[in-house]
Amino acid sequence: MVAFSDGVIAIAITLLVLEIHPPHDTSHLLHGLAALWPSYLAYVVTFMLIGQVWANHHIMFDHIRSVDRVVLFLNTVLLMGIAFLPFVTSVLAAAIRDGQGERTAVVLQGSAFWFMDLLFNIIWWYVRRDRRLLAATIDSAGVAAISRRFRLALVWLATGTLLGLLLPPLGVAVIAAFIPYYWLPIAGEIAKVRRRRGRRNAT
Amino acid sequence: MVAFSDGVIAIAITLLVLEIHPPHDTSHLLHGLAALWPSYLAYVVTFMLIGQVWANHHIMFDHIRSVDRVVLFLNTVLLMGIAFLPFVTSVLAAAIRDGQGERTAVVLQGSAFWFMDLLFNIIWWYVRRDRRLLAATIDSAGVAAISRRFRLALVWLATGTLLGLLLPPLGVAVIAAFIPYYWLPIAGEIAKVRRRRGRRNAT
Amino acid sequence: MVAFSDGVIAIAITLLVLEIHPPHDTSHLLHGLAALWPSYLAYVVTFMLIGQVWANHHIMFDHIRSVDRVVLFLNTVLLMGIAFLPFVTSVLAAAIRDGQGERTAVVLQGSAFWFMDLLFNIIWWYVRRDRRLLAATIDSAGVAAISRRFRLALVWLATGTLLGLLLPPLGVAVIAAFIPYYWLPIAGEIAKVRRRRGRRNAT
Amino acid sequence: MVAFSDGVIAIAITLLVLEIHPPHDTSHLLHGLAALWPSYLAYVVTFMLIGQVWANHHIMFDHIRSVDRVVLFLNTVLLMGIAFLPFVTSVLAAAIRDGQGERTAVVLQGSAFWFMDLLFNIIWWYVRRDRRLLAATIDSAGVAAISRRFRLALVWLATGTLLGLLLPPLGVAVIAAFIPYYWLPIAGEIAKVRRRRGRRNAT
Repeated sequence: MVAFSDGVIAIAITLLVLEIHPPHDTSHLLHGLAALWPSYLAYVVTFMLIGQVWANHHIMFDHIRSVDRVVLFLNTVLLMGIAFLPFVTSVLAAAIRDGQGERTAVVLQGSAFWFMDLLFNIIWWYVRRDRRLLAATIDSAGVAAISRRFRLALVWLATGTLLGLLLPPLGVAVIAAFIPYYWLPIAGEIAKVRRRRGRRNAT
Repeated sequence: MVAFSDGVIAIAITLLVLEIHPPHDTSHLLHGLAALWPSYLAYVVTFMLIGQVWANHHIMFDHIRSVDRVVLFLNTVLLMGIAFLPFVTSVLAAAIRDGQGERTAVVLQGSAFWFMDLLFNIIWWYVRRDRRLLAATIDSAGVAAISRRFRLALVWLATGTLLGLLLPPLGVAVIAAFIPYYWLPIAGEIAKVRRRRGRRNAT
Repeated sequence: MVAFSDGVIAIAITLLVLEIHPPHDTSHLLHGLAALWPSYLAYVVTFMLIGQVWANHHIMFDHIRSVDRVVLFLNTVLLMGIAFLPFVTSVLAAAIRDGQGERTAVVLQGSAFWFMDLLFNIIWWYVRRDRRLLAATIDSAGVAAISRRFRLALVWLATGTLLGLLLPPLGVAVIAAFIPYYWLPIAGEIAKVRRRRGRRNAT
Repeated sequence: MVAFSDGVIAIAITLLVLEIHPPHDTSHLLHGLAALWPSYLAYVVTFMLIGQVWANHHIMFDHIRSVDRVVLFLNTVLLMGIAFLPFVTSVLAAAIRDGQGERTAVVLQGSAFWFMDLLFNIIWWYVRRDRRLLAATIDSAGVAAISRRFRLALVWLATGTLLGLLLPPLGVAVIAAFIPYYWLPIAGEIAKVRRRRGRRNAT
């Protein structure tokens, strides 16, 4: 299931670029390319956020020993959300470019990521209820740390979405600020796991 | 072969979103997005059904020990059907949106899934004839249970398709009702297999 | 390298469907869908042929123990050809639909597959020169059998391409006839390998 | 992480073809196809360069034993660049076809590959600082050889980009000349690693 999820995430992240259409008119190409900045912005923010989703997905499932029907179902719904992101990103880019409907587009983008984080929270809440579903490599402190992080994301993304309703650029900024904040500790955790494995392999 | 099939299914499921085109006019974006509801409906139903196809494919091939030329050929035809679904889904969304041709579109969608289930039935019928093709992990009760489920799907999807010929929304509803029905026991079976493996790994 | 090649082949085969555009006008949907038959024909023929390419690729690399710089380069060129097929297929479908340029389109399709088979021949010829590059699981009779099959494909596809220059439908028929012919023995060989492995795993 | 990166690279390389649109008018199909030569040129050059990026990525990560948060972040940025290439290639093809904006398009293409190579240099520089991150299979001569190659690429691609600013065709030629130059030694190194593994497996 992890390999299938990886595939869907890798495809969704790579399809983002198909939503950026090269300028039809090449007579002022530099100008035409510069005018696409909303698409680049939406691309970079969404790409980095999906990168986080991928990293979190791995961390979560590295700690899950067995997958039952509920987890499988929730994961499919999560993938349905991730695979939907190229559309959401395209809408955001169009709204910023036209200077119209940014409110709607930012709320859509924020809600999509909030919805995904909600699924992370539900899966994790479900799994931590039954120790048998969890891998032996994680202790209760680790479980609680992941829960805290997923809950924080819920608040952060909801804040960004609501601010986007008032002032779209602020909403995008708050959602995008999640990238530097979130990236580091999560990646650090992966790194620790990998390092531990590396040491084990080396000995 | 399973990895290749997984790849094709993951790609087909993720390409579904490319058939949803963002509204050209961003001046009433919320309205424009709401008008795309037939696309979202077709996306959700097809995504969840392909999710089932993927789960069933794994269950079936987890129980198949060796693949001969016939199975390989039938699997390629099955993948050809799965890879065709983004087109079918796009046609369904367009028909519902335009309020025209829904009969044709629902029959196309139903037939596509019926055809895939037919291939599951043929592959499974072929494989169960020769015990040597089956893995040792499945007993005759398990084989019969899978056969029953694949046959039921054949009847269910045929019913949905025929009802769609009379009353398109009813056809979509019957086909979509297959998601909650089918998802649970199949996923449960995976879960049991995974749990057993998990235990084996843990001991 | 095999996993990367598998990925490219799986993606190319699944992208074929994106070249089939649903009818814009849904008022006579059944008629509109029927008019797309050239696209379905091109889709089915190309899908099944790529399926063969995938099977052959696996058979070939199952017998190759080590990959040097030449094989890696040739394989990249082969993948470049495979990834180009969605374009070729789209051109073929458009030509049949418009009743114009079929000669060009069939020759393009035939040449594309001939070119791929040429690369199979070159890779295999290069690898069989140096026994150290071959796996121990294949004897000289097996090596010769694969060589014969790859050479036959070269003649068959060249014949289909040239006939397509004279009479396009005949060219398509000859190229398509390669599917039932080629599929069987190749798939049979995979099956034997898998069965042997299955037995080994079972003991 | 390597499997996810492989997936993104495989998808990006296969999406390149979607940027080549078949001629709308099939009445002079051969002429229409010939007129697409800038697209073919951009396709071939980019495909082979991404092939190199893939090979280099494998070589680099074959020598990295453990991945920390910094490497994971830099790799995500690298993938963001690779996934952006279908857009860049499409712009290049359009500029050559229209005979307008080639300067901009060649600089964009060159800069994109230069940026990717910069990330390779940064990742490698970061990793070689701490021997614990490196695999035991590489000695300091090997580390230095890879560093030299990555640095050379930086100079080569910068030269091609700057020449493209003066004379676009020359820029494309210099960047494309990197394919035959770079392909060989890198591929040779993979081959040596694989051969060594092959021997180890054989003994």
